[in-house]
Amino acid sequence: MPGSHRSADRAQSVVALGGGHGLHASLRALRQLVDEVVVDDLTAVVTVADNGGSSGRLRGEFGVLPPGDLRMALAALCGEDQWGQTWERVLQHRFAGDGEMHGHAVGNLLIVALWEQLGDHVQALDLVGRLLGSAGRVLPMALTPLDITAQVRGLDPADEDALTLVRGQVEVATTGGVITRVDLEPASPVACPEALTALAAADWVVLGPGSWFSSVIPHLLVPDLRRALIETDARTVVVLNLDEQPGETGGFGPADHLAVLVEHAPELAVHTVLADTRMDPDELAHLREVTAAAGARLVVADVASDDGTPRHDPARLAAAYESILLGAVDAEQDGR
Amino acid sequence: MPGSHRSADRAQSVVALGGGHGLHASLRALRQLVDEVVVDDLTAVVTVADNGGSSGRLRGEFGVLPPGDLRMALAALCGEDQWGQTWERVLQHRFAGDGEMHGHAVGNLLIVALWEQLGDHVQALDLVGRLLGSAGRVLPMALTPLDITAQVRGLDPADEDALTLVRGQVEVATTGGVITRVDLEPASPVACPEALTALAAADWVVLGPGSWFSSVIPHLLVPDLRRALIETDARTVVVLNLDEQPGETGGFGPADHLAVLVEHAPELAVHTVLADTRMDPDELAHLREVTAAAGARLVVADVASDDGTPRHDPARLAAAYESILLGAVDAEQDGR
Repeated sequence: MPGSHRSADRAQSVVALGGGHGLHASLRALRQLVDEVVVDDLTAVVTVADNGGSSGRLRGEFGVLPPGDLRMALAALCGEDQWGQTWERVLQHRFAGDGEMHGHAVGNLLIVALWEQLGDHVQALDLVGRLLGSAGRVLPMALTPLDITAQVRGLDPADEDALTLVRGQVEVATTGGVITRVDLEPASPVACPEALTALAAADWVVLGPGSWFSSVIPHLLVPDLRRALIETDARTVVVLNLDEQPGETGGFGPADHLAVLVEHAPELAVHTVLADTRMDPDELAHLREVTAAAGARLVVADVASDDGTPRHDPARLAAAYESILLGAVDAEQDGR
Repeated sequence: MPGSHRSADRAQSVVALGGGHGLHASLRALRQLVDEVVVDDLTAVVTVADNGGSSGRLRGEFGVLPPGDLRMALAALCGEDQWGQTWERVLQHRFAGDGEMHGHAVGNLLIVALWEQLGDHVQALDLVGRLLGSAGRVLPMALTPLDITAQVRGLDPADEDALTLVRGQVEVATTGGVITRVDLEPASPVACPEALTALAAADWVVLGPGSWFSSVIPHLLVPDLRRALIETDARTVVVLNLDEQPGETGGFGPADHLAVLVEHAPELAVHTVLADTRMDPDELAHLREVTAAAGARLVVADVASDDGTPRHDPARLAAAYESILLGAVDAEQDGR
């Protein structure tokens, strides 16, 4: 029963960092813990480096933050009543047809309009959250649009060891070759102050799952955000992806995901690494090593969905989060 | 003092018909009477024949009702608190720049998205109304997009008496020559059932002000709506425009407005004609004649704004409406 083995003496505050479908699944899970009053304060901090699709078009047309990942996070936190469910559908609605509106998500347009009208990113996102009866707050990672650049090995046919610079979230996410590191342009964007405040006050930080190089690691590259992540007393949970992502993490096992994250922020203290049970013994052994080297504990739980996609199941992820937050799971205990 | 000379024994139900800026001003006035509990049930019935601007583009792209006049009506009825005021601004916000979003009103996009998502015109508009804390309900005149056609005299240089068919709201509104009559295409659109119900239950119907041939008279051309207007026990107030509109009503005085409206629906019983005080004696005499011939009473009141535009001032219009609804004004009494 949810909450039956509860051991924390008060509800917890959680900051979840990421972007796209990975953050959406994580927030769907965390909002269940809000409903169960295991979590009483939930903040999503979202990447703003997208340059594709509806977001990319709006960013190009208006020079605004790409709204898509913010919209996805808001949709994940929508109220569960009919009002919230309806507005979630509207927010996520994409125009069809073959005209100028084709492919635009309504929520993206609404968010951009609110930014233009209110002149304040956070105030606008809070207003959408209030409209939706949101279970938490959604904040951008930075207050200026960013681009991700990657050093990629293997793109130069003349020299397989040469590094090529790939620029743009879409381009990085779909690159061939092997990404050796990612950076941001501009390199030192202004972090969202409310995100820094939330991190300082958090009990738990959840990093991932999601497109590893283009949605998860970027948070570690915003200098003020990185500092806040290092300095917070919150315990940081890294949620590993369930599979490689062709392009940016082709060939990656669970341990590789953790290893490149640690490489990008060696000073970050990781408290818990959450991985799915579906690993072969070699992968598990390797992950144990990398986790131990990072000074973290490993929790292996059944968190994958059964639908054949490499996506987390929100209810299973919620159960795993609950066990972790309530201290009811030991390292490597199976959370099922 | 508002309400101090109140004589009606209960709050009144009002249906206001029109489109564009004219209906917006009328609804701003009527919502004041909702706040004062003179009106307890307010319904706007809105033209859906626009083919220009953001509405025309969306109509062309998706084959939907043109949402612009509906959006304007919803904006007029927004709550007066900060929430309502903010959403009014967002609804009315137009994207700038020179890209594909240029000129689109956010409310138009939201309404079209809700239609696509919910598959029900009225349910979608009710949902926007609920979002805004609307003081009344906004309904479309018909459930299919319409086009206005006009017979226009004076466009044929070879024969000044020849009639030319002009098609489209924008084209009719900006035509040269003299409009002799307007029609709808299709000629017998399905009226919005909720609008018919509202008319049957209304105490008062307010027709106008607004673009006379392209926003006001079209209501009389939808067969079921015309029948409902004729059969209702409600008293009908015709609110005359303050000035001619170059193009569709070039050269029109107050009496001409009333006369062409009566020509388009001779069976309509007009209870009260509301005109502004700024008429010269000849215009007033002519208006008296046409009003008397229509079997209506004439109320002349100070309802124009002082800003030099030919627009109604919502507060003054509210005072005039209040006097009319409460029976506190006699024919030709100056409502000041």
